[in-house]
Amino acid sequence: MRQPEPEPQSFNRVLSSMCTEPHPDARAAAERFLATNPGDPATYEAVADLEAQAVEGLATLAAHPTPSDAAGYVTSGGTEANVQAVRSARNRHEGSDAEKGERDINVVAPESAHFSFHKAAELLGVELRTVPLDDDYRADPEAVAAAVDDATALVVGVAGSTEYGRVDPIPELGSIADEVGAGFHVDAAWGGFVLPFTDHAWSFADAPVDTLTIDPHKFGQAPVPAGGLLAREDAALDALAVDTPYLETRSQATLTGTRSGAGVAGAVAAIDALWPDGYREAAERAAENAEWLAGELADRGYDAVEPELPLVAADVPESEFRALRDAGWKVSRTGTGELRVVCMPHVTRAALRAFIDDLDRIRR
Amino acid sequence: MRQPEPEPQSFNRVLSSMCTEPHPDARAAAERFLATNPGDPATYEAVADLEAQAVEGLATLAAHPTPSDAAGYVTSGGTEANVQAVRSARNRHEGSDAEKGERDINVVAPESAHFSFHKAAELLGVELRTVPLDDDYRADPEAVAAAVDDATALVVGVAGSTEYGRVDPIPELGSIADEVGAGFHVDAAWGGFVLPFTDHAWSFADAPVDTLTIDPHKFGQAPVPAGGLLAREDAALDALAVDTPYLETRSQATLTGTRSGAGVAGAVAAIDALWPDGYREAAERAAENAEWLAGELADRGYDAVEPELPLVAADVPESEFRALRDAGWKVSRTGTGELRVVCMPHVTRAALRAFIDDLDRIRR
Repeated sequence: MRQPEPEPQSFNRVLSSMCTEPHPDARAAAERFLATNPGDPATYEAVADLEAQAVEGLATLAAHPTPSDAAGYVTSGGTEANVQAVRSARNRHEGSDAEKGERDINVVAPESAHFSFHKAAELLGVELRTVPLDDDYRADPEAVAAAVDDATALVVGVAGSTEYGRVDPIPELGSIADEVGAGFHVDAAWGGFVLPFTDHAWSFADAPVDTLTIDPHKFGQAPVPAGGLLAREDAALDALAVDTPYLETRSQATLTGTRSGAGVAGAVAAIDALWPDGYREAAERAAENAEWLAGELADRGYDAVEPELPLVAADVPESEFRALRDAGWKVSRTGTGELRVVCMPHVTRAALRAFIDDLDRIRR
Repeated sequence: MRQPEPEPQSFNRVLSSMCTEPHPDARAAAERFLATNPGDPATYEAVADLEAQAVEGLATLAAHPTPSDAAGYVTSGGTEANVQAVRSARNRHEGSDAEKGERDINVVAPESAHFSFHKAAELLGVELRTVPLDDDYRADPEAVAAAVDDATALVVGVAGSTEYGRVDPIPELGSIADEVGAGFHVDAAWGGFVLPFTDHAWSFADAPVDTLTIDPHKFGQAPVPAGGLLAREDAALDALAVDTPYLETRSQATLTGTRSGAGVAGAVAAIDALWPDGYREAAERAAENAEWLAGELADRGYDAVEPELPLVAADVPESEFRALRDAGWKVSRTGTGELRVVCMPHVTRAALRAFIDDLDRIRR
């Protein structure tokens, strides 16, 4: 009745994904923990210990004040982490009543915020106020300041935007949140494993960040599914807890119930193998590749957005985009239709050269 | 800085989990697809095709009217599937306005409903009305009928309850939902791979079921994370869709963003290997083990709940429960404190004999 299973594709021509080929150690660890569930720590004790290690590793990257004691957990990905950050802020907002839904609460985020914030708003019944960007695709602090009010439960800053790889002015946004008594969340889902090797201000050390998304399964080179949510204070996670009887745990703060032990073990193994030197090398290589690609595209007359983190966007016509996809390149587009190439660790200079060669052939 | 990784435990003494040792084919498939993301089908085409196969397989088990064309997807687990069922019903309920939160909408579920429904209610801002069970731990249709009203968006029936493995009177509950124009959801997360080999009425063929949870990573012997949400009509999933720009897909109906290709591939491989004969054999063996264990416990004077599906609950004193855990047995308790043993496929008769031997030793 069924066809034989297709082979999983190689990453050779994948220029669209924010995930990447896992580190070999991470793959091996994930395989060993395939049948475990960190959502049931009383049964699966080994993976519960590993999760504490993963959180400590992520907290170290994000300059948490007390990494060994940081609140957080390994999520299914950035979407879960962002949804949970909004949920926590909603539940903690003064005057809120989580039982009844929150008609009046709002969340202020730049237009560049990941669509998981739209999903969160729809799920959680809060208003999402998206505010315009500045001329270089970053959150405009003045626009954010104009949008917040007493009903603002959360301000969102993006440290590595999905479309252009931009880093918002995190300290300024944190101050604005602080002034109105709102929580402040930084979405570094993709950027979090690159930013420690840059001069950007993005972390717990740089601003009054309450919660932060940082995904091992993106630049962290862990296998899917391994996202990360961190919080400065335990109270942010406590606001997510729902009592559960039969798991021999007091409560479950996660969005999902059963979770992937493979993701947790893979994250720990990747961080062990790569932090900090391996991640630094990967970040530098990716940055060089992005610069190179943007230069090549600009040389050919395309309007290329100067890369800030290793992500290149350029105004390539629809017909050429289609031809590149037909040639087997996995590429995607920004909301306004620009070609978007994410220079993940699996994206080599040789692959980018072949990509440019194909583009030249298509243009002829 | 870090300790060497602990070994993942064996399943030998795990009597508490609703997950199990994956089938070898499923493990192999999961390992091949560790680095893929079904949340990005334009990039990861192979796993997108596999997901359609997984949904068809689940829909076949659940007697969906058109399995090859069924609406559904592979979730991170039963919690996501149940949350999404509540969300879909909320969004589809007449007069609802998802943007504003839903103060007035309610969901009616038996007290035996999984705690994911409590999580869903808190997340989604709907009222959860839990109604008492009958004397044998099943939903009482009269109590459900008394609880529903015009603001009821969803009635929940459980086909294999978490605490006692009970199957609610699904057809009666479906009729009650129908009468008030509410949606009807069946939570067969754990029971779904056992129920096809019983006389219970639980599926799309047995009642006006709108949505159904059925998890490959439980009795389906797929690796974590692989849950399943099915819907009778596409509209139930359409009500979950949030537009997303950069993934080259029209919309994303899932709760999480990035998802596990390993879970999807593992689910397909498990269903290929085991449906129907392998699942039938596993279900029969599990039922015999549960009967045997309940009998042994009753012989020793414990008040054991007669198993309906392969799950045994018995009134074992706290001190003996603690001693069993100290002896290395992973056991859990019901909300009222009874010992709870889930006879999953990895639970052998030999293990249960050893468990009873340890219990005898403890009682001496």
